[in-house]
Amino acid sequence: MEKIDISDVLSAAQRIKPYAHRTPVLTCSTLDKITGNKLFFKCENFQKIGAFKFRGACNAVFSLSNEEAKNGVATHSSGNHAQALALAAKLRNIPAYIVMPENSSRVKIEAVRDYGGSIVFCKPTLSSRETTLENIIKETGAYFVHPYNDLKVIAGQGTSALEFIDEVKDLDYIITPVGGGGLLSGTLITANAISKLKVIAAEPEGADDAFRSLLEGRIIPSLNPKTIADGLLTSLGSNTFEIIKKYIYKIVTVSDDAIKNAMKLIWERMKIIIEPSSATAFAILLENRIGIKNQKIGIILSGGNVDLSKIAELLN
Amino acid sequence: MEKIDISDVLSAAQRIKPYAHRTPVLTCSTLDKITGNKLFFKCENFQKIGAFKFRGACNAVFSLSNEEAKNGVATHSSGNHAQALALAAKLRNIPAYIVMPENSSRVKIEAVRDYGGSIVFCKPTLSSRETTLENIIKETGAYFVHPYNDLKVIAGQGTSALEFIDEVKDLDYIITPVGGGGLLSGTLITANAISKLKVIAAEPEGADDAFRSLLEGRIIPSLNPKTIADGLLTSLGSNTFEIIKKYIYKIVTVSDDAIKNAMKLIWERMKIIIEPSSATAFAILLENRIGIKNQKIGIILSGGNVDLSKIAELLN
Repeated sequence: MEKIDISDVLSAAQRIKPYAHRTPVLTCSTLDKITGNKLFFKCENFQKIGAFKFRGACNAVFSLSNEEAKNGVATHSSGNHAQALALAAKLRNIPAYIVMPENSSRVKIEAVRDYGGSIVFCKPTLSSRETTLENIIKETGAYFVHPYNDLKVIAGQGTSALEFIDEVKDLDYIITPVGGGGLLSGTLITANAISKLKVIAAEPEGADDAFRSLLEGRIIPSLNPKTIADGLLTSLGSNTFEIIKKYIYKIVTVSDDAIKNAMKLIWERMKIIIEPSSATAFAILLENRIGIKNQKIGIILSGGNVDLSKIAELLN
Repeated sequence: MEKIDISDVLSAAQRIKPYAHRTPVLTCSTLDKITGNKLFFKCENFQKIGAFKFRGACNAVFSLSNEEAKNGVATHSSGNHAQALALAAKLRNIPAYIVMPENSSRVKIEAVRDYGGSIVFCKPTLSSRETTLENIIKETGAYFVHPYNDLKVIAGQGTSALEFIDEVKDLDYIITPVGGGGLLSGTLITANAISKLKVIAAEPEGADDAFRSLLEGRIIPSLNPKTIADGLLTSLGSNTFEIIKKYIYKIVTVSDDAIKNAMKLIWERMKIIIEPSSATAFAILLENRIGIKNQKIGIILSGGNVDLSKIAELLN
């Protein structure tokens, strides 16, 4: 693996500063009481495009030399990374080619178009996705920005924890959800370098590749992941796995029911909209899966992109 | 009318400081673009009990002498003021007697109980509400805190605008919703004393007593108000009417459809939960009912108490 450390996160923070929000940290005395800890919530749902993903995409796009950037950027994603890369590319005034399965929801397609992304449809299979991406890169000369295994992306995601630690002193723990591992890896790089705080990862039981990979010491991709936390379906990459293996304190899985309860409680009590993936981190506390009491715990709420027309089924 | 001015708001700010949140101000570039203005949202949905009402109730409760406070406080309300007064009383360690119609929703009853309020049920009529309140005051000696016509309550509500003006310099306008007029009056007192900014009130068409009262120069209560904005059903009081009449720049009404659209857009784009009443202020901009462009506009989002089990009907 190539080298990445806190200096990369610090550079990323400077690089994205003109474009990204410094997201607020919220607290909630009711949730403190329920969990028996002092909780701090870093609201990446308030980030540009509604998720932390903008940090990584923005750092990646603005790290490119003019030569590298001149033909634009490309990626495969139907989720928040697609919107994040589209917006970052628009801000740098270069094209973004986004490979999306042809059965993606209209909401997601429109969101990427709104941010100025050029959508290239593929069949909803891994091989079609990869071939389509290869072709578009060959045709256009666009620069590939991987959703989570790219080191610039990881460094960008680490800036959330950097702001968090700056704002809330003496955190004992930070909890993040883990899907592909970009946010978790970036958080680990930051947390490890700046203080002795421990980082815990929360993963849905239905997509527990990170948990199993760490257990066995090698990457074990999820084959048919299924969870309400649709941002956490992806499996770890080579870089994120190495970083996580090296620095993580603990990884804990939770059920979809727990995730749903956690999401509902945050909506109701904190009056903010978070997506199911984001609720995973709080769910492990709510379920008392780590037995922590009277600690200062930072929770990164990763995003807030929910299709409101599907709210009822999510909440019931 | 008794005297109230900025000094009362400044005292209120000091008095409630140990108990109330200084709520954050959020911005949203998408909503700026849609309305053609620079918008700032003061998030009272993040206030204690989920609404600005805590400011007024807290100021009223902590303004009482020990003699006045010794038998507790009482009010009639099935909404946010009930929760606000219950919590403020709990913080001062005195009882709060809350008169609520016996057909109030379970969610609202439980919320008041959660904050330690003693609920006294009445029939769902105005006369039963008033008689029940009179009786409980006679029995207990509790101090009556009116939901919006009490000057200490009005001064407390004015602290939101005080923080707002402190945080965002050079606002051209502040928009608040108007129901009984407590928030609007407090905002007017603050805005008038501190700078030349104009205050606009937004009111649902189905409960437009403030609009008609200002038009005719005397209080004309709503007889059968009907609106999705259930926090704005009440009519102006004698004190709020006088203050509003004296200082207001403009009052504008909007339809429930506009309120619903405004609410949905704020949920989707800002990732925060606001109640329909709160959306009224943004709705008048969204409908372009005041013809303002390129201005710095502050919007007070009054609260976020929504029954999530009824979300689907609210959003559709």
